[in-house]
Amino acid sequence: MILEINEEFLDNLKELIASKNDKEISAFFSEVHFADIAEVLDELNFDEAIYIIKLLDSEKTSEILTELDEDTREKILENLSAREIADEIGEMDSDDAADIIGELSEERQRRVINALEDDDLAADIKELLSYDDNTAGALMAKELVKVYETWTVAGCMRRIRGQAKEVTRVHSIYVVDKEDKLVGRLSLKDLITSKSDQKIADILKPKVDAVNVHEDDEEVAKIMAKYDLEAIPVVDDNNVLVGRITIDDIVDVIRDEADKDYQMAAGFSQDVEANDTIWEITKARLPWLILALFGGFISVSVLGSFDSAMNNYPELFFFTPLIAAMAGNVGVQSSAIIVQGLANDSLKGSLFKRLLKEILQGLLNGFVLAALLMSAGMLFLGFGLNLGITVATSLISVIIIASIIGTFIPIILAKRGIDPALATGPFITTSNDILGILIYFSIAKLVLGF
Amino acid sequence: MILEINEEFLDNLKELIASKNDKEISAFFSEVHFADIAEVLDELNFDEAIYIIKLLDSEKTSEILTELDEDTREKILENLSAREIADEIGEMDSDDAADIIGELSEERQRRVINALEDDDLAADIKELLSYDDNTAGALMAKELVKVYETWTVAGCMRRIRGQAKEVTRVHSIYVVDKEDKLVGRLSLKDLITSKSDQKIADILKPKVDAVNVHEDDEEVAKIMAKYDLEAIPVVDDNNVLVGRITIDDIVDVIRDEADKDYQMAAGFSQDVEANDTIWEITKARLPWLILALFGGFISVSVLGSFDSAMNNYPELFFFTPLIAAMAGNVGVQSSAIIVQGLANDSLKGSLFKRLLKEILQGLLNGFVLAALLMSAGMLFLGFGLNLGITVATSLISVIIIASIIGTFIPIILAKRGIDPALATGPFITTSNDILGILIYFSIAKLVLGF
Repeated sequence: MILEINEEFLDNLKELIASKNDKEISAFFSEVHFADIAEVLDELNFDEAIYIIKLLDSEKTSEILTELDEDTREKILENLSAREIADEIGEMDSDDAADIIGELSEERQRRVINALEDDDLAADIKELLSYDDNTAGALMAKELVKVYETWTVAGCMRRIRGQAKEVTRVHSIYVVDKEDKLVGRLSLKDLITSKSDQKIADILKPKVDAVNVHEDDEEVAKIMAKYDLEAIPVVDDNNVLVGRITIDDIVDVIRDEADKDYQMAAGFSQDVEANDTIWEITKARLPWLILALFGGFISVSVLGSFDSAMNNYPELFFFTPLIAAMAGNVGVQSSAIIVQGLANDSLKGSLFKRLLKEILQGLLNGFVLAALLMSAGMLFLGFGLNLGITVATSLISVIIIASIIGTFIPIILAKRGIDPALATGPFITTSNDILGILIYFSIAKLVLGF
Repeated sequence: MILEINEEFLDNLKELIASKNDKEISAFFSEVHFADIAEVLDELNFDEAIYIIKLLDSEKTSEILTELDEDTREKILENLSAREIADEIGEMDSDDAADIIGELSEERQRRVINALEDDDLAADIKELLSYDDNTAGALMAKELVKVYETWTVAGCMRRIRGQAKEVTRVHSIYVVDKEDKLVGRLSLKDLITSKSDQKIADILKPKVDAVNVHEDDEEVAKIMAKYDLEAIPVVDDNNVLVGRITIDDIVDVIRDEADKDYQMAAGFSQDVEANDTIWEITKARLPWLILALFGGFISVSVLGSFDSAMNNYPELFFFTPLIAAMAGNVGVQSSAIIVQGLANDSLKGSLFKRLLKEILQGLLNGFVLAALLMSAGMLFLGFGLNLGITVATSLISVIIIASIIGTFIPIILAKRGIDPALATGPFITTSNDILGILIYFSIAKLVLGF
């Protein structure tokens, strides 16, 4: 069912475009979903993409525009006039329209909004643009089906036939009082199974989940996922109904959030994709790598300060990468558990208990790994007992301390309002590397006395 | 709106339970959503949870059961008879019912299904249990609204009133032919805006996205997210309509998948949560740590084989953790981009171009970092030119090779049907550590000649 976009397909298409075989191109795309067409356009060069856009009818292109990759869309919009953009925008739902206008410069935003023929849509877009990014207000659409509690079922059916035309999907019908305050909801099912002379006030469901227009979008995602909601009404501080958020937008929020966390853990300082240019990818990768390099310098200095051990215990230096790697791995594991716990709101109970648990956990892992290390070292590498004890004790200490750091850095970041996902990745690996080496050589100095 | 479950709240509740203040407990929980009650129960000890379950009416408890953490639910189900479980199951949708029965032992599964009063539900559950995990069949529910193409709008309305009672949410009405093969769909909106004597065959939308019952659930998630679908019908190999999947189940698939990838990248061998026991967490963490330890041994041997350098160039050994860390960081970044690209199906174009891009990307990052390293080393650490060149050249080589490995290991894994997310994390860090050190010392030997 999904269109397979492979090299062969793209080559064929490029040939059709080069030979201006419009008939075959249109015939092909008439059968394809706009989300698939958008994916195809993302793979073409700019001239080819424009060629196809001009071939397709305007109803389809407005849908395609909403689905395009931001980079491709930006280039296409740059080549359209404010009037042309306004025509495309006019076909969109208010939330998609606001998202796309929001990507333009302020000057162009004004010109496109002025060029809109539908004044209501223009007002809706202005309102949506006024909310902060990542809030319910920025995510919601203005299109919804709203009825007054004083109406009858029959009157309601008549009027929602009009409203429903503008709403792609009717999830719930929201009931408001005469001041437009949200008082309840109804499903279409409730309406068609009620008598036509009943008052809406008598059949509405008074308990309705709603979110404030300033609520964080990730919080909205959590609420909708938890309560299995497919749409949620958005109200202002006076409980006046101002919009609704549907689950398809939330699916995007959840995926973006997961991608962001994953990328942060992997050491990217900004959103990046496999198909971005080398320059864009470098900009996203280099900051963390420079930080890691700086951390590496510190570990070089730490090692340098223990150079007196080099004559009698050269083997100690062979183990530094092992100790550093174990510290890094343990730290990342501990912080990942906490980052996910924070994201799912499943971290309850006292900090002291968590600390105790991490120490026990570290001891357990540490003993198993130290026993393995010591026996392998003595059997295969010919360790003396002292060296064996040094490396084993260091490993246990390093693992416990790396666990504690991995656990508490994300908690502290979250308390200060910083995204805890920042902690998993190069930051924790680098700091645990340094600390691991420092602990290792300090213990060695204590045991072996160099 | 969301219930705040903090220590104070739990302490109060535990006191109410201890003093058997049933009236206050019921009064409190009567206002709370079952998803919130489930979260509270997850935090209580077993006796307390059972106490509350017995207080609440059975309609609510079946909903709570579906929302509980698997561990908590397992303990509760162990204490219920097959008949009691069957009573709870009888109130559930077929997909939730099958999920919960699937968690029981085979012997208990049989007993519970036999104890079900509703034979249709029993047959539905047996069918759902027969599909492989992580397929559309295992995810779908049997409840849906189905009409025949030969019906009229009026007849349709009459009959779906009956069917709709069993279906929590009516997204689409699926139209089938006399062999139950899917031929189209309708929305409730289409029905209420059509004339009552029209034939369904004349108003149905013939193009309907559907997935095969054996389709992978992540593939279903991609399709639904891409086309913004809220429900999708499931058909068997003969295109017979067998069930439907709703977006709320897909939200769970997306979240689980993201959690799994994140955990794999952080080095867990199985699903784990912050509140799991120390033993469970250790089981999930230790396998990768042991692998990393084993990798560490190899790096120890590699370093040991270069011990002849120790007399003349002790500084070389101070840089091993830095080189290893940079190799690890770069490898994780490269693999994360690819893992995400594979997950989003956005990796197109030839492998050769990707290889070239990674090499260029590695060169660019490598030069910047090597220049920083060399100047800092010569300014602050008193490097000679030869040592500076050695470390800088090694860093560039290590970065390029780590990028290539990070890029191609996930691609190779994916081609062999292994989850590429496995590559990001301890696996890539460990192998890049070893390789990084080997390259570093080989270059040093070549340049410095020890």
